Amino acid sequence: MKRLEIVGLEGLGEVRHGDSIGSLIVHGCAGQGLTLADQDVLVVAHKIVSKAEGQVLKLAEVQPSPRAVELAKELGKDARALEVILRESRRVIRTGHGAIIVETHHGFICANAGVDQSNVGLGKIALLPRDPDGSARTIREEIKQRVGVAPGIIVSDSFGRAWRLGTVDIAVGVAGLRPFKDDRESNDPYGYELRAAVAAVADELAGAAEIVMGKKGQTPVVIIRGYERKGEDGSAKELLRPEAEDLFRSF
Amino acid sequence: MKRLEIVGLEGLGEVRHGDSIGSLIVHGCAGQGLTLADQDVLVVAHKIVSKAEGQVLKLAEVQPSPRAVELAKELGKDARALEVILRESRRVIRTGHGAIIVETHHGFICANAGVDQSNVGLGKIALLPRDPDGSARTIREEIKQRVGVAPGIIVSDSFGRAWRLGTVDIAVGVAGLRPFKDDRESNDPYGYELRAAVAAVADELAGAAEIVMGKKGQTPVVIIRGYERKGEDGSAKELLRPEAEDLFRSF
Repeated sequence: MKRLEIVGLEGLGEVRHGDSIGSLIVHGCAGQGLTLADQDVLVVAHKIVSKAEGQVLKLAEVQPSPRAVELAKELGKDARALEVILRESRRVIRTGHGAIIVETHHGFICANAGVDQSNVGLGKIALLPRDPDGSARTIREEIKQRVGVAPGIIVSDSFGRAWRLGTVDIAVGVAGLRPFKDDRESNDPYGYELRAAVAAVADELAGAAEIVMGKKGQTPVVIIRGYERKGEDGSAKELLRPEAEDLFRSF
Repeated sequence: MKRLEIVGLEGLGEVRHGDSIGSLIVHGCAGQGLTLADQDVLVVAHKIVSKAEGQVLKLAEVQPSPRAVELAKELGKDARALEVILRESRRVIRTGHGAIIVETHHGFICANAGVDQSNVGLGKIALLPRDPDGSARTIREEIKQRVGVAPGIIVSDSFGRAWRLGTVDIAVGVAGLRPFKDDRESNDPYGYELRAAVAAVADELAGAAEIVMGKKGQTPVVIIRGYERKGEDGSAKELLRPEAEDLFRSF
C-alpha cells in the first residue's frame, strides 16, 4: 500500500538573523520525538530561511524611486514595498487589478517578486532568499553534520497562478532530490507511451506541506515520509520554463 | 502534532462505462481494510470518472475538420486528437511550441482541453467529465448510500502551468469541501493582517494525491486523512479566475 505521511514540526520558536535552520530542525525533531531519515523530504517555508539569512528589510528605511511611487499609485500599494519589489525583479511582466507580476532575479515569475509582509514583524518586509537552492543545500549539510542523515530539502513559497484563484505552495529551492518524477520512458498498462507525464513533484510536495503549514507561520517546517526521492543534485531552477518555450511571458 | 496521511487505494481494477466509482471505492477500501470517515478527502483521477461516464472516444471514428487538420500540421499533432480538443474548447488561448492552450467549455485553461490518450486504451482518447463537480457529488452520494459517511471528493487532472515546467495535479471537480483554506480574516502572530493568504487547498490536496498516484493509472484513488475539510457545498468552478481579473488571457 502506497502511503505518504506529512508531519508538521511545531515549536521551532522565533527565527533570528544568523540562526542555523538545520540546527533548529534537528532540535525541533528531538523535542517532538521524531527521528530524521535519509529518505525523508523536509519542506521549509522560505520565510524562516529569509529571516535566518537576514533577507528582511525595514520599510521605513526604504527610499522609493519615482517609478516605484508611480506604480504604487497605479496599483494602490505602498511605494516602499513597490521599491523593494522592483529591486528584486529582473523585469515587470504585467501590472493590473492591483497586482504586479514580475520575473525575479532568480527567474521566478510571480506576484510581488515573492516579497511580503506576513509573519515577519510589523513594518518589515521579507525577500526571498538570494539563492534558495543554496539555502536548501546549507540546511541539508547542517542536518547531515548533526545527525548523520541527509534528507531531501525543499524551500517553499506561496505563489498565485495564471487563470486560477488562490495560492499554492511551490518549490523555490531544492537540495537532495530530483524536482521531477519522470515517467516518460515508460508505457501505461495499455502500451501507450507516457510522453507528457512529467510531474513537478517538488512543487506537489511543497503544496502538500502547505496543507499542514497553514499561513500563520507556526508550522514552518514539515516532514514528508514515504516519497521515494531520487537523485542528490536537483535544483529548483530546473522547474523554470525557458523563455524561448514560454507562451505567456513575452508578447 | 499536525499530521496528514495520504493512502493510495490499489486494485480497483479496470473501470468500464456505467461503473459506479463510489461502489468501486467502497469495495476497494473493504479489500484494503480501510474504513472511510466523514472527515476524509478522496482524490479521484478524472480518467476513471471519464471512463465510467463514457467520456472516451475512438480516434478512428473522429472526422477532423479543416481547421483541426491545419492546426495539427502546425503543431505536429494528430488531426483527430486536435478535432476532439477543439470540440471540447470554448476558445483557443495560445498555440506554439507544439502545444495548444485552450479554455474548455467548463472554463479551465489548460493544454489540449484536458483530453489525452494515456491509460485509456490504444486508439482511444479520454475527455474530461462533462460536469466534474457533478461527478464528484455523485461519487460522494454513492459512498454515502453504501457506507453512511460522506467524505470530501476531489476529481483531479494533471495540468501544465505558465512559466513552470512539469505538471501538477489540480482539482477539476469538488464536492463536500471548500476549495479554499481561507485565513484572510485572521492576523499573523505579529498582528499583520493576512490579506493574500488564501490557499487553493483543493489544488494542493489534488497535487499531494498525485505523489502517491503516479502516472500509470494503477492508483487512481487516494484517501487523505487529517485535513479538516470545511463546508459541504464547494465547487471547482470557484477556483477559476474570472476573465475580468485575469492578466494572462485576453490581450
